[in-house]
Amino acid sequence: MRTTPLAEMPVRGTAPCRFPLVARVAVRITAPESRISGPAGAVAAIWLHCQAKSNQAPNMQTTYQNQQWFYVKRPDGRVGNEHYELRKTELDGNLSANEVILRARIVSVDPYIRIQQHERNTYDVPHPLGIVQRAGVVGEVVASASPLFQAGDWVSAYSGWQLYARCHQSELTKLDPGAAPVSTALGVLGMPGRTAWFGLTEAGRPRPGDTLLVSGAAGAVGSLVAQFGKRAGCRVIGIAGGPEKCKFLTETLELDGAVDYRAHTTPAALSAAIQAATGGVDIYFDNVGGPITDAVIPLIKRRARIIICGAISQYDGGLDTPDLGPRFLQHMLFQRATIQGILARDFAHRMDEMLAIVAPWVKSGQIVFQETYVDGFEQLPEALNSLFEGKNTGKLLVRV
Amino acid sequence: MRTTPLAEMPVRGTAPCRFPLVARVAVRITAPESRISGPAGAVAAIWLHCQAKSNQAPNMQTTYQNQQWFYVKRPDGRVGNEHYELRKTELDGNLSANEVILRARIVSVDPYIRIQQHERNTYDVPHPLGIVQRAGVVGEVVASASPLFQAGDWVSAYSGWQLYARCHQSELTKLDPGAAPVSTALGVLGMPGRTAWFGLTEAGRPRPGDTLLVSGAAGAVGSLVAQFGKRAGCRVIGIAGGPEKCKFLTETLELDGAVDYRAHTTPAALSAAIQAATGGVDIYFDNVGGPITDAVIPLIKRRARIIICGAISQYDGGLDTPDLGPRFLQHMLFQRATIQGILARDFAHRMDEMLAIVAPWVKSGQIVFQETYVDGFEQLPEALNSLFEGKNTGKLLVRV
Repeated sequence: MRTTPLAEMPVRGTAPCRFPLVARVAVRITAPESRISGPAGAVAAIWLHCQAKSNQAPNMQTTYQNQQWFYVKRPDGRVGNEHYELRKTELDGNLSANEVILRARIVSVDPYIRIQQHERNTYDVPHPLGIVQRAGVVGEVVASASPLFQAGDWVSAYSGWQLYARCHQSELTKLDPGAAPVSTALGVLGMPGRTAWFGLTEAGRPRPGDTLLVSGAAGAVGSLVAQFGKRAGCRVIGIAGGPEKCKFLTETLELDGAVDYRAHTTPAALSAAIQAATGGVDIYFDNVGGPITDAVIPLIKRRARIIICGAISQYDGGLDTPDLGPRFLQHMLFQRATIQGILARDFAHRMDEMLAIVAPWVKSGQIVFQETYVDGFEQLPEALNSLFEGKNTGKLLVRV
Repeated sequence: MRTTPLAEMPVRGTAPCRFPLVARVAVRITAPESRISGPAGAVAAIWLHCQAKSNQAPNMQTTYQNQQWFYVKRPDGRVGNEHYELRKTELDGNLSANEVILRARIVSVDPYIRIQQHERNTYDVPHPLGIVQRAGVVGEVVASASPLFQAGDWVSAYSGWQLYARCHQSELTKLDPGAAPVSTALGVLGMPGRTAWFGLTEAGRPRPGDTLLVSGAAGAVGSLVAQFGKRAGCRVIGIAGGPEKCKFLTETLELDGAVDYRAHTTPAALSAAIQAATGGVDIYFDNVGGPITDAVIPLIKRRARIIICGAISQYDGGLDTPDLGPRFLQHMLFQRATIQGILARDFAHRMDEMLAIVAPWVKSGQIVFQETYVDGFEQLPEALNSLFEGKNTGKLLVRV
């Protein structure tokens, strides 16, 4: 496994990664040798860079030395470098009308990528083999034949794991670096934020006084769900792996409690710990599935809402041979509970509705959006792999 | 096991057990030696009896020779006679103001009774030991000190497994034998009907063209769900055990298909058969749980609604040691499906709303309400036991 050792940057102060403080605060690093780095001011640096370049003339270069990660082999367990090929290619920069050249700067790695690597249909057709890995990206327009974009504009797109892409203007969303750091378009103000917002508000239906339990609570979606839940007046308990993450939950996110699932070795012990922390669960926002969810389900209260947002513990397994867990549907009956599966894409058309509420919170520093950065385009497959090791806190991003 | 052999009555004609035909049609009997009998005209006989008695003078008797089934031991598997004691007692017939003496005529046996026999809380506290088994009853008022009831009135009550009960008027619901056979107060126009109606309409949200799959489709609730689904414009497929029940589903209830789960010995074969019959499932109304539900879940379509109404396959098991089944929450996510547990009691306050729609259908013969009768008060525990053998079609009732 290749790593990119980077000097661990000091955390300047104890303030969380709220927007106004972003240039002063580093993402926490827990593993000294980790290739996951969190240099202070990373986001702000990009943001300032973007502002500096926004008045430059369009780039007239006609060929771009590109790098692309091709998805070439379906994993039968953990995904890694062996399922990808890094290719150096040339991108023809001659633009047709309404096209632009996008230079990626921040590439997203998300758990859903692993789902789409299965051979059989899941919520989408399988990601084809032999093409560039699809992914969300934030980058700069470096050349434009579009009336809507000019060189220097920051945009988000779904252009995948490649340094350069030729995009039609319809594929781009312009970002306003003055409104929020551009990286947030891949996190709190992007797909993960939308997932958290609509999953909680639409399927969770939080009421003040409800006890909200979030699994994967230190993750990209979970950490937002937890904070949105607090703002809805819920008592919020998070489940995460390890004391550092639990400290993040209670001290940085100021949740009402945290359960370290790694500290409890049997399902019964974990269930008892969750019961002690929650006193029973009105809303369970599930990002992980598997044994943690097994431990939670007996603790749900009457008319509980269970939101199935992810099942990261299960993504490595074969879908055709699911593993076994305790049957629990009888308990759903007794409690008249609801389970609902939700996907961000179902709320894509309501993005503005979410942004109208959440963006001001981000701008005024009321929401913590933790980001973990990996540096280097060549790190992308290993960064994806690391999602399933539970090392990152908040949104995992790769700077390229 | 005691049985009460009764002459098998011929089925007079092929018409289903619709209201106007009730005196002419017998409940089907499949097992020649079965203690479950279905004499023709049973319901109508009671109904006519009730009409004949309705003008009699109040019964002035002051002591009633009673029989009561006491629930004395918690079953650790199948329930039967060994968990009950039949006691002959005397009931003091001296009434206080607003009290009546009720003589039970039809006693209900329902799967939920078994749930409440567990020691630990389920959706209610456990049924106490050492008291008369609670159950729904239809009977006659034989003496009254209530201004609301007179001797000869037919009522429904929750007076349990006893021949006579002294009840406060507030515990009784007066029945109109001219509107429907009184037995329907324990079936289509009672708790099972309410379960079916609100489970389907509130949690199932049927749309014309949806494919509705019902497990336990020949049962008290399932057979009504299936018919309500047809009236909502759904394509309805039922799952039941054995060719007779499947014939009932397709010929009597006129469903669009039926799957005999007993004809498929592996989960994969059952799943393939259900897939062939349904082509995918928009609404799954589940009364059984366990391996049948395991076979259905991979077949649900996008935004499917799964209603957990019962899990009769699981009621015998210990709740503290649930058995294992395939994990499936990931599939809920992919399909953005909803699972909802529902209980009849949550809709008790909306009974009138259901009756306003369903009672006219019953009266005009548009709804089949199959009833299976067991004769004899002493048969009650064994009748309850038989529910879990899947022998009855429609509502199982004991005539006492």
